Amino acid sequence: MDQQLYDFGMIGLGVMGRNFLLNVADDGYGALGTDIDDESVEALNHEGKDMRVKGVGTQKEFVSLLTKPRKIMMLVPAGKIVDKVIEGLLPLLDEGDILIDGGNSHYDDTDRRYEFLKGKGIRFLGTGVSGGAKGARLGPSIMPGGDRSAWEDVKPILETVAAKVDGEPCVTYIGESSSGHYVKMVHNGIEYGLMELIAEAYDVLKRVGGMGNDEMSALFTKWNEGRLNGYLIEITASILKYREEGKDTHLLDVILDKAKQKGTGKWTSQSAMDHGVPVPTIDAAVTMRAISAFKEYRQDTSKLYKDIHPEEVALRGEGLAEAVEKALYFSFITCYAQGMQLLAETSVDREYNLDLEGIARIWRGGCIIRAEMLEKIREAYGKREGLKNMMATKEFRDDLFACRDGIAEVVHQATERGIPTMCMSASLQYFDAFRSESLPLNLVQAQRDYFGSHSYERLDQKGIFHTSWDEPQTAKVMDPPSGAEG
Amino acid sequence: MDQQLYDFGMIGLGVMGRNFLLNVADDGYGALGTDIDDESVEALNHEGKDMRVKGVGTQKEFVSLLTKPRKIMMLVPAGKIVDKVIEGLLPLLDEGDILIDGGNSHYDDTDRRYEFLKGKGIRFLGTGVSGGAKGARLGPSIMPGGDRSAWEDVKPILETVAAKVDGEPCVTYIGESSSGHYVKMVHNGIEYGLMELIAEAYDVLKRVGGMGNDEMSALFTKWNEGRLNGYLIEITASILKYREEGKDTHLLDVILDKAKQKGTGKWTSQSAMDHGVPVPTIDAAVTMRAISAFKEYRQDTSKLYKDIHPEEVALRGEGLAEAVEKALYFSFITCYAQGMQLLAETSVDREYNLDLEGIARIWRGGCIIRAEMLEKIREAYGKREGLKNMMATKEFRDDLFACRDGIAEVVHQATERGIPTMCMSASLQYFDAFRSESLPLNLVQAQRDYFGSHSYERLDQKGIFHTSWDEPQTAKVMDPPSGAEG
Repeated sequence: MDQQLYDFGMIGLGVMGRNFLLNVADDGYGALGTDIDDESVEALNHEGKDMRVKGVGTQKEFVSLLTKPRKIMMLVPAGKIVDKVIEGLLPLLDEGDILIDGGNSHYDDTDRRYEFLKGKGIRFLGTGVSGGAKGARLGPSIMPGGDRSAWEDVKPILETVAAKVDGEPCVTYIGESSSGHYVKMVHNGIEYGLMELIAEAYDVLKRVGGMGNDEMSALFTKWNEGRLNGYLIEITASILKYREEGKDTHLLDVILDKAKQKGTGKWTSQSAMDHGVPVPTIDAAVTMRAISAFKEYRQDTSKLYKDIHPEEVALRGEGLAEAVEKALYFSFITCYAQGMQLLAETSVDREYNLDLEGIARIWRGGCIIRAEMLEKIREAYGKREGLKNMMATKEFRDDLFACRDGIAEVVHQATERGIPTMCMSASLQYFDAFRSESLPLNLVQAQRDYFGSHSYERLDQKGIFHTSWDEPQTAKVMDPPSGAEG
Repeated sequence: MDQQLYDFGMIGLGVMGRNFLLNVADDGYGALGTDIDDESVEALNHEGKDMRVKGVGTQKEFVSLLTKPRKIMMLVPAGKIVDKVIEGLLPLLDEGDILIDGGNSHYDDTDRRYEFLKGKGIRFLGTGVSGGAKGARLGPSIMPGGDRSAWEDVKPILETVAAKVDGEPCVTYIGESSSGHYVKMVHNGIEYGLMELIAEAYDVLKRVGGMGNDEMSALFTKWNEGRLNGYLIEITASILKYREEGKDTHLLDVILDKAKQKGTGKWTSQSAMDHGVPVPTIDAAVTMRAISAFKEYRQDTSKLYKDIHPEEVALRGEGLAEAVEKALYFSFITCYAQGMQLLAETSVDREYNLDLEGIARIWRGGCIIRAEMLEKIREAYGKREGLKNMMATKEFRDDLFACRDGIAEVVHQATERGIPTMCMSASLQYFDAFRSESLPLNLVQAQRDYFGSHSYERLDQKGIFHTSWDEPQTAKVMDPPSGAEG
């Protein structure tokens, strides 16, 4: 038979999958793709028309056109879809074929699939791929884990596809079973941390330093030439200076400050807790995305807390015990507020139909967290149907308002001496974050759109938007995307 | 038949289970208990000898001596033991009997057991019980969820057993399925937060204010009379003044500052993340327990960071951009350090056998978190076999050392203006916590021992210790305990 066979196959021809395949073809390999969406198949045939690239419409044709042992990567949304694709593919494969899951699957799923496919004679590689759409096209960092013999077979292709640093390819065999996806998950957890840190730096420069976007862009550009050099610093410089077509205003200023998440940052924090490893910066980044999502709530709360002025804050040196008492009272309120809000939300999500007043009532006695304060909490929930967070009540507002100087002073005095106040700090930050009408997570959304086409919403218009940030003046309305990271 | 039947049965006669039963008997109910440990059965018979209380050695006898529908509570360690007890009990029960799980079971387990037992005709109540050993004896707060008709049947007993506030019993029907255990879990999450906050207050009073234990005890006593009134404040006052028999020194000073955990605080954080609800104070408390557990690592690190003096810290007003750059560099290091340590630990725990140098290497290009810094990280892991946290290297130490003033200043300036810096704050706190040879979590351990007999280790002697804190001078060596909370 004279039919041309292809070296590498891709299931899922979104922008990541298409770009990865074109990258494979760049290096002289025959690259074959399939997708249930005909337009994506066409897009691949169009983009790859002068290369050894082909998109086909059925899995059957797809499988028949690959050299054996087949090397098939999936780049489809994590979760049940991966299992569905595997299920459909399995009867068409031969023993020894290689299946690569290039998405952000949870490591528990990857462990399960690895064992299942091993039993079927299929060699499975749970593989992290980072770099966004552009990285996929020009060279991503690739983290394959699982079957080692499969790694040996795909190594030549993955090494040519991967980014190079000092001539070394950014791919290596990570380890057994789900280790590739686990390492990619931690990578994303770090990414969450770095993005939020940059957002906070932007906020401080803007609100403490009064710097403008262009000035900050120049600063980030300068920083990118120094020890802070890195991709996220670099794209932040681009984002900061980006202007819309025909406008003087910066796009960043109108991006809605509600950051979304796909789960990998959260999984990192959750897994770190299971293993007893502290990752508070990543936890805090996950927290800030959650707080940012409560935009409407923050708007209400910010009105309540508007009149805390900087000059009222500082209580210096004197009256430490008084300040510590205020710090405790303040942070106790935030701690109960967090727990009660969790119950208020899960009452709906988990259909528990909880009586929050009743819970505050039975916590007033007998239990370890019994305290006078619970009577006030009971009253707050008793008086207000549907109250989610008690910081939004006048009673607690007055207390928090009156105590903020104390906790700020305690944290400051402790920090000056290198004494950790992790929990008080988190309480103070929680309060300041929840009473911020705006948060700098418009930048996080811009970063996510930059590298993962995750889109953003705007303050000045309805809709879902995506911008090609490094090709100025291309902001456009788009359908909700399915980017691979962030 | 003339045999006396009992109203309420308890499986698991540890101190919590015995005390709960004695409490039931106080109120005139016949209280029956069983345990696989004969000594616990004997202890119940001894302690309850003048009451309608009986301990028996077999489940068969136990079940035969209960009035129908049987009302049986389990107070056994959470996890597989609960399933084992249920398995053994099921053939002995009749349709309509009531089973109450009074332990700290995970809500997913409770959902599963609820459905399973419903299919067998057994009415199940997943029930949170808080108050420690003393609360169980004198009146706990009780959070039952699950079968509502079962609640109606046990309501009279649980209402008399529960603590009373203003005549109202601290028990109410919480809601469907696992809601009782879910609410108890959140209760414990709040408890984690409050305990750590108190520990930090103690640390600040001691290290910033130079206060002694007795002075602090008096202060907490005073605070307990004011708006901070509550159980944890109260027991902290007792703990602070506690002296060992024949000694002038305070017991608290020699308690090892490694706090343990049983999981409920962690579950709260993990579930909050799943539901997108921010609970940073609780996250921070979970983090601090994890950091405290790395005692030996903290000892090493503290040596490396000894010579940061308070007078070097303050960089005031000027040079904001410089300070923000330092803040970013500092917090980026801590963020990578956290992710890399997570990989170092899970490489062992999950048997991934990771090559950390290789991972840093392939992250240098292609991926979203690529940065110049990764070369330095690669070198650090390449040079040192078994390196866990890169903050413990001379290279990063010098960077962190030189940047701490910047991040402290940025956080301070932002806080003065009410601008949240959650993630930078967490990074700074992480650093200060990890470089603290001692942390105030000796107080957390003392609190856990106070209300849950969880025991503690000492700095001055080997062994596991427990103290009856409200009966002075009873510190004693003990076997590892199985307390119910904390």
